[in-house]
Amino acid sequence: MAFDFISSIIIVFAAAVAGRFLSKKFKQPVILGELILGAIVGNILLMINDSALNINEILEESVVKDIAYIGIFFLLFTAGLSLNLKEFKKIEMSSSIVAILGVIFPFILGYIVAIWFGFSNITALFIGTALIATSIGVKAEVLLELGMMGTRLGSLIMGAAVIDDIIGMIMITILISVVKTGHILIWELGFFIFLTVLFFSIAILLTKENVSNILDKILLRIKLAKESLLIMGIMIALLFSFIAENIGLSVIIGAFVAGIVLGQLGFFRGLKDHVSLIGGGFFIPVFFVTVGMTFDFNAFFRIGEFAAVLLIVAIIGKLVGCGLGAKLTKFDNRESIATGVAMIPRAGIELILIRLGLDYKIITPEISSAIVIMVIITTLITPPALVKVLRK
Amino acid sequence: MAFDFISSIIIVFAAAVAGRFLSKKFKQPVILGELILGAIVGNILLMINDSALNINEILEESVVKDIAYIGIFFLLFTAGLSLNLKEFKKIEMSSSIVAILGVIFPFILGYIVAIWFGFSNITALFIGTALIATSIGVKAEVLLELGMMGTRLGSLIMGAAVIDDIIGMIMITILISVVKTGHILIWELGFFIFLTVLFFSIAILLTKENVSNILDKILLRIKLAKESLLIMGIMIALLFSFIAENIGLSVIIGAFVAGIVLGQLGFFRGLKDHVSLIGGGFFIPVFFVTVGMTFDFNAFFRIGEFAAVLLIVAIIGKLVGCGLGAKLTKFDNRESIATGVAMIPRAGIELILIRLGLDYKIITPEISSAIVIMVIITTLITPPALVKVLRK
Repeated sequence: MAFDFISSIIIVFAAAVAGRFLSKKFKQPVILGELILGAIVGNILLMINDSALNINEILEESVVKDIAYIGIFFLLFTAGLSLNLKEFKKIEMSSSIVAILGVIFPFILGYIVAIWFGFSNITALFIGTALIATSIGVKAEVLLELGMMGTRLGSLIMGAAVIDDIIGMIMITILISVVKTGHILIWELGFFIFLTVLFFSIAILLTKENVSNILDKILLRIKLAKESLLIMGIMIALLFSFIAENIGLSVIIGAFVAGIVLGQLGFFRGLKDHVSLIGGGFFIPVFFVTVGMTFDFNAFFRIGEFAAVLLIVAIIGKLVGCGLGAKLTKFDNRESIATGVAMIPRAGIELILIRLGLDYKIITPEISSAIVIMVIITTLITPPALVKVLRK
Repeated sequence: MAFDFISSIIIVFAAAVAGRFLSKKFKQPVILGELILGAIVGNILLMINDSALNINEILEESVVKDIAYIGIFFLLFTAGLSLNLKEFKKIEMSSSIVAILGVIFPFILGYIVAIWFGFSNITALFIGTALIATSIGVKAEVLLELGMMGTRLGSLIMGAAVIDDIIGMIMITILISVVKTGHILIWELGFFIFLTVLFFSIAILLTKENVSNILDKILLRIKLAKESLLIMGIMIALLFSFIAENIGLSVIIGAFVAGIVLGQLGFFRGLKDHVSLIGGGFFIPVFFVTVGMTFDFNAFFRIGEFAAVLLIVAIIGKLVGCGLGAKLTKFDNRESIATGVAMIPRAGIELILIRLGLDYKIITPEISSAIVIMVIITTLITPPALVKVLRK
């Protein structure tokens, strides 16, 4: 075990260092280098590995997967801590509009394209849903790297991403229940929405100024060393993530909300820098390198007309939907484009959908491969494009 | 998986926070609180857990074990970075004498006690060997907490601990080959010693002033962000650990040596604080809490005359052997006592020995349980005793 464990971390870290070095050299965001180096390493490992497992299955059995999992937790925890709550609250309405338009556009476009290509109604619903959920991690990393997490635009993007993620979860829950039972499990869905509202209501309550003042008064009596404070902060954030996960939301939503809540407390001042260092210096690079490792270049050889069209509507759907949302709520052109670009990358949720769809023979391997290509390309093009728009 | 994973880390972190809080309240080293709270949590888990697995087997399957493993790596990496190489080199001879006397005394005492209690010759050799290897982690943590890693005394203790560990490895290798094949595998042993000497020679070469100057000249051309530097440093230390592990030394020796080597390079200035924060704020507490979790309080109900005598000679053996070694090489009384106390705790290597001994029916469950009690008590009494002697 020791051998596999240490050597696999060394490989991932080597890819991260090389990726970061190249990113710096070509003035690109670090995430791009990590993703590309991860993809290269992953595809080499796949070639020299003679077992029948694919890279996802190899990772699944490795502790690297767990470290990556902690990485996305740290990324969103840092993002929450870096957020400016006042800005965030001010643009709640804009975030919602951006998120909703950013869900509707890709969903409808995906549905229409699928029908156009002659797929059945349920298959088209699957394809539309696969285009909904944005990758929170990618934009969080870029915003943090540019130091824009606390800005008005950063708040808009993060807020919209979280709402988008929740809508995506609801849609997927509906689709799964329809596929498995033939109808929408209305009570289950209602219960999920009830718990979600409860979770956010408690979180909002905790960020009220008088509540956080009371919490601070109690906490500030405890004198803790820097490391102990850090452990305590991480523990609380894990607790939030645990609750979020068990409600049916994701760990990353829990970590993000925990970051916002703890960020309001004077007791946890200084936590942000330390959390960001632990995350950035150990866990987060492992996350992005392993995301890159799952990019299967072989999929590109199977690219067809459908995959190309799906990719285009995936990009246009978010760009137009979210950009329009931002523009409607009085953000300027550059900011609106940035918002649209930021929402382009798709992430992991589709994988649940793909597995389910394949199991129930709702989607074909061709469709699955088109979705995978869409995820890879939208993830790779977003960081450099976003940096370009934001730096203008 | 997500459930088990997050909830188990939350439990371990909660134990660490509570342990640290109590340590602070009772003015004890943090490690003591972590060990005790870990033991309490571990024994509660054992009680409410209705499977036939013991806590070691439960941990073995958990990712917490891997995080603990990275914890001991970070602890020794930090220790190496915090060391003052000049002091360390000055007292090489003293360290060797302390280590050698600290091996001979407990070994002979353990052997005599075993023969006295009527055990066979090979069993007595096993028992003697089980008293040899000291726990590097426990003293490293206490020295770091007191800020004494860079002192002359800290250097003596760490140097002796490393040499002690290597002697222990050699002894165990010999015993294992004797038990398995009936004789000493002289070539294998020679090869191990050859590789060990090579490893340390290369490490010493790398710390030579002109070599590190050349390395710095090359490295300082690379401009890296704080996080990237950290990743690079950790990667190099993992590489050292990987090599050390595969030679037959331990991961912790590799991490410690890597720390010393990187500590000489200007390029890695600032690394110590960051490594120490990541370690202390995430991984190291997990290590000590899980060490505490493996303390089986049930063993105390089986305590017998032999266990009590073994415990006493385990303590006296190191106290007298190492204390004498320090005194002979011109350390004063307080420093000599501190050196003896620091070497008292025993750690994991005995577990290999116990398993092997039980498998080959060389030791009885009674002996195994006596060794386990010895490990628990020496680990628990050392931190407060050492802090008391050092603070005088």
